[in-house]
Amino acid sequence: MNERIARLRKELEQPLLVSHPTNVFYLTGFSSSNTMLLVEPERVRLFTDFRYIDAARAVDGVEVTETRRDVIGHLGELISGSFGFEATTLSYAQARRLDNAVPTEGVVERLRAVKDESELAAIRRACAITDRMFERLSTEVQFVGRTERDVAWDIARLYHEEGAANPSFESIVGSGPTGSRPHARAGDKKIGAGEMVVIDTGCTVDGYTSDCTRTFAAGSVNGKAREVYEIVLAAQEAALGGIRAGLPGIEADALARRVVDETEFAGLFGHGLGHGLGLDVHELPRMSTETTDVLAPGNVVTVEPGIYVSGEFGVRIENDVVVTVDGIEDLTGFRKDWVEVG
Amino acid sequence: MNERIARLRKELEQPLLVSHPTNVFYLTGFSSSNTMLLVEPERVRLFTDFRYIDAARAVDGVEVTETRRDVIGHLGELISGSFGFEATTLSYAQARRLDNAVPTEGVVERLRAVKDESELAAIRRACAITDRMFERLSTEVQFVGRTERDVAWDIARLYHEEGAANPSFESIVGSGPTGSRPHARAGDKKIGAGEMVVIDTGCTVDGYTSDCTRTFAAGSVNGKAREVYEIVLAAQEAALGGIRAGLPGIEADALARRVVDETEFAGLFGHGLGHGLGLDVHELPRMSTETTDVLAPGNVVTVEPGIYVSGEFGVRIENDVVVTVDGIEDLTGFRKDWVEVG
Repeated sequence: MNERIARLRKELEQPLLVSHPTNVFYLTGFSSSNTMLLVEPERVRLFTDFRYIDAARAVDGVEVTETRRDVIGHLGELISGSFGFEATTLSYAQARRLDNAVPTEGVVERLRAVKDESELAAIRRACAITDRMFERLSTEVQFVGRTERDVAWDIARLYHEEGAANPSFESIVGSGPTGSRPHARAGDKKIGAGEMVVIDTGCTVDGYTSDCTRTFAAGSVNGKAREVYEIVLAAQEAALGGIRAGLPGIEADALARRVVDETEFAGLFGHGLGHGLGLDVHELPRMSTETTDVLAPGNVVTVEPGIYVSGEFGVRIENDVVVTVDGIEDLTGFRKDWVEVG
Repeated sequence: MNERIARLRKELEQPLLVSHPTNVFYLTGFSSSNTMLLVEPERVRLFTDFRYIDAARAVDGVEVTETRRDVIGHLGELISGSFGFEATTLSYAQARRLDNAVPTEGVVERLRAVKDESELAAIRRACAITDRMFERLSTEVQFVGRTERDVAWDIARLYHEEGAANPSFESIVGSGPTGSRPHARAGDKKIGAGEMVVIDTGCTVDGYTSDCTRTFAAGSVNGKAREVYEIVLAAQEAALGGIRAGLPGIEADALARRVVDETEFAGLFGHGLGHGLGLDVHELPRMSTETTDVLAPGNVVTVEPGIYVSGEFGVRIENDVVVTVDGIEDLTGFRKDWVEVG
């Protein structure tokens, strides 16, 4: 904890008001939906309301002040002088109520992009549990004839049985045409024999998430889907083989996109290659056609190319990896070959 | 849908850029984490990226434009003229990128505070499922000797069995001293015989949530907790008996607070009486010591007084009610008398 505050202070030219709950948790271990943390050169001040005050007082190394429920409104009476605030997460209306406040962007988020050993350990465990969940899902669970929602429930149940506290987000179970919409959730549609099923899921260990996608064939599936599957797999292998520290995210993205765009399915990989992963499911750095991020040692990123054939099916394959000086550590171990489920 | 847009247009003096995903869903039925809706006098424009474009094109009555992943960055090229934006939910950094944009606060949220019949129907069903969950939880599930987290899992399982898609939020299971922190989550602490257990939970039906709290005695519990229980129950009954349309939220809060503050536990009801409920777990209007909201017919609010004895235990009792012209419709049916669980 103190090391994180120390790293943050090196980035600061003036005090920083940390408002994003996940950033506050990262810096202090304190979890609340209504808190602000002021990091000054010589002290750290934590502001929260009655509901969280007992937990706040248990946090080491911070001075705690109980505020009204309207923390921002109360802050004006409690702090003075110029300070930075988090402009990408504080609302416009809240920011306007702060006097002498200077917008900053992504200061804590950039620290969070480089994971320390305790964070890597938690993410490794989350990924290992996701591997076991997929192993059991693909061998123990019936797909054909059941709804996407029921399969999503089985995923939650398997996570619970494997010791993960909670799914880190609702699982996506997209069968047939649903799978061609990359972020469609599990619905009441029944999974038909001969459909592809995209499953995008993760779990949380000590606050840190995994995020893994596999695409299964429900029963026997026709040739076009199989062709697409092999292209997506080749695209992912190309990215996994080329990602290393120092590579711009836009070039990492191109490693996989090039493979897709050389085929008749060019243009159907309609999202970025991946994103950072940690306390949030979406963190820095990004790998996409739009990003200016550059990969660094200790980044944990998803590698998730996909092809989406509108109205027919989608295929996505996603692993989580640690970026190292000369390559990656692949945290996802579940098989990536073509798997037919019943 | 069109009726909601029509109601919104009556409130607008210029076009409104709706950025909050829940507000977009309320107005269009379209669900995406990366979308913006521009409501103009004669048309409604929906902006989203590739991942959601198929779903967007299925929405009636809107003109869909596919944008880059960075929707805000792309908007400048697509819209012109002055318009309002949602200042309480758009970040400061995003708002600064909009030209000719005027901050507004809570325009759609105030519409959402008054529920229509289809919304009330969904909330009634969510509340009925929560009643059945509590009935089964209190009769079928073992508490003493098991962890808070395991009981929270049983709650999720019972919801699934009763047909609720997902818990609307992680259930709070706070035993003994954990219960004295109003927002502590379910942890690895084992529930001991003789402890009070605060359970705050809800489920989602068609996007609408319930939010209900009961406090159980795990086995036989001493006199002080029982005394506190009766005070909290009396405070809630006082509020339920007095709430009606036209009552300021601050006066509704006082109905219950007065009962607590006349006892030796004065000052230990450390949060507001309740909040609006709908697509979000926390909506307008609020009933608290700080609010300026006034109750209106069709509001759905929680009524949830509590007493928190720091380091010992907490008691909270929460029902969901519809505000009517002359009183309330109580949506929560589960018993409120003292219940001992095994």
